[in-house]
Amino acid sequence: MHSAEELQQLFNNELKKLSFSRQPNNLYDPFKYMLDLGGKRMRPVMLLMACEMFGADGTKAISQAIALELFHNFTLIHDDIMDRAPLRRGKPSVHQKYGSATAILSGDAMLIYAYQYLIKTSFSPIEKLVSVFNDCAISICEGQQMDMNFEKGDTVSVEQYFEMIDLKTATLLAASMRVGAMIGGASEQDAEHTEHFGKNLGVAFQLKDDWLDAFGEAGKTGKQRGGDIIQNKKTFLLLEALRRADDDTKTELNQYFMSSGNDPEKKVGRVLEIFNSLQLDLVTRQAIEEYFSKALLSLQKIEVGQELKLPLKNLIEIMMQRDH
Amino acid sequence: MHSAEELQQLFNNELKKLSFSRQPNNLYDPFKYMLDLGGKRMRPVMLLMACEMFGADGTKAISQAIALELFHNFTLIHDDIMDRAPLRRGKPSVHQKYGSATAILSGDAMLIYAYQYLIKTSFSPIEKLVSVFNDCAISICEGQQMDMNFEKGDTVSVEQYFEMIDLKTATLLAASMRVGAMIGGASEQDAEHTEHFGKNLGVAFQLKDDWLDAFGEAGKTGKQRGGDIIQNKKTFLLLEALRRADDDTKTELNQYFMSSGNDPEKKVGRVLEIFNSLQLDLVTRQAIEEYFSKALLSLQKIEVGQELKLPLKNLIEIMMQRDH
Repeated sequence: MHSAEELQQLFNNELKKLSFSRQPNNLYDPFKYMLDLGGKRMRPVMLLMACEMFGADGTKAISQAIALELFHNFTLIHDDIMDRAPLRRGKPSVHQKYGSATAILSGDAMLIYAYQYLIKTSFSPIEKLVSVFNDCAISICEGQQMDMNFEKGDTVSVEQYFEMIDLKTATLLAASMRVGAMIGGASEQDAEHTEHFGKNLGVAFQLKDDWLDAFGEAGKTGKQRGGDIIQNKKTFLLLEALRRADDDTKTELNQYFMSSGNDPEKKVGRVLEIFNSLQLDLVTRQAIEEYFSKALLSLQKIEVGQELKLPLKNLIEIMMQRDH
Repeated sequence: MHSAEELQQLFNNELKKLSFSRQPNNLYDPFKYMLDLGGKRMRPVMLLMACEMFGADGTKAISQAIALELFHNFTLIHDDIMDRAPLRRGKPSVHQKYGSATAILSGDAMLIYAYQYLIKTSFSPIEKLVSVFNDCAISICEGQQMDMNFEKGDTVSVEQYFEMIDLKTATLLAASMRVGAMIGGASEQDAEHTEHFGKNLGVAFQLKDDWLDAFGEAGKTGKQRGGDIIQNKKTFLLLEALRRADDDTKTELNQYFMSSGNDPEKKVGRVLEIFNSLQLDLVTRQAIEEYFSKALLSLQKIEVGQELKLPLKNLIEIMMQRDH
């Protein structure tokens, strides 16, 4: 059994070994560029940990970890085009650097390579593995379309928001965990518990992201406080605020979030004031705690020894305490 | 054993039955729109015929025929965005109708659904089937990038052109035929012959398209004669003309194809004059014949009775004689 750090090292080494050196060069340049931008590699590492939780060696699932990471990067490349995002991790996004046409096509190729790595396994029946991946991939497309619809529509409920992050964000961690469990030799029931664990954890992480934007320590997050507020993003905080606010405050919030001509500093200041007055710090932390507890409950149900669950448990506790 | 018409009917019925009725609607609207635009469904029908050539019932491969047709439509949606094409089969292209963001995402979802249908089979080992599909899909991305590079670069050789259409166009027919053969129960060697048959036929079809643009009867093709010339497309005819022309004619051709300000009618007239003077009608027909013969030779090598090859043979002879 490996530690999280060892698995991360293992994964990074494997990722570095990939050479997309086929022709034409300019189709594959964005692969290297995108993968070199880094990231926490949270999903692939947790996939490997899920595999080891069932007593198998994580290396057995390394190709699937690569597959999920390629898939994740494919979604980032295409999402950045759709969202017209000029930056990704502080550097020019792929379409900004290579043009939209190549960004679309490189993303497509990356998705296909994800399938290529996914099927590199002795797991049988392999169509079960591909189905988990397909269902997840389709959910993510649906979640992204829903997210884009939210940007245009005016009223979004908290329930719709949860449905969206469930599809767009939590599904990928859920599928990663399930794939790891399957390759690790989990029973159907344990694979399902592992998937639910990933799903609830994914929601908790997204809520934490939303919380950090408003209540995190700006010095530590490395991001501008209130970035989501400036970008008029429909986060849990905003939707919950709209649900809780009286009519006057609701009108004020709607005015702030419907126009882009506001002084950003003033806007962030006032919106945070409203968030605070509605006790959203506490409300959000409670929601995070709720999903985190659900995740832990699913983890408990998995029928393997406590010591096999420990590495995952430690990792997620560190991740939940992160202040950036 | 079914006739080509019966298989086409069978396929169209199956395609009509697909209902992509999941939420959000606007992710799936382009599916219906695109599939309703029609098309000859040449690849899926030939996939079913390849399956029946080996004695199996075509219905056995119907999901894979759907998969290949979905994949083909995914490439059309994304290619139209990349090429900024406003029209597809005389109607607004998907990105023109639904916007680029949804066109990118619907295309992605369609590619994922292609995998979903691909794995609906009792064929084993299924990873072999997925590998054929993956290799083909990656080739098509490479071919499309090469094609885009051609649009920008100035000198393209006839050899590079063949490499490009091999990747971008012929591979899909080759893979369709191979998948059909595999599911039909072909030996490895016969599957390979069937694939080569499809590959060479695919090249012949593309050359025929190039030829029709310049020498087809405009009344029958339903397209404007010289459409490729007006769009400055690098076709076999142009590249072969540049290879055969004397320096003065080469300069003239390059001038015509490097600027967009020419009177289209005058341009087409003069370029066709040059094509004629270089005997490109004959040269292209010879090239088509060459690839068609290679295809027939591969068909001959397949170790099944002549009567099983007949439907495919008849179909491709009709297709080669088409004047539109």
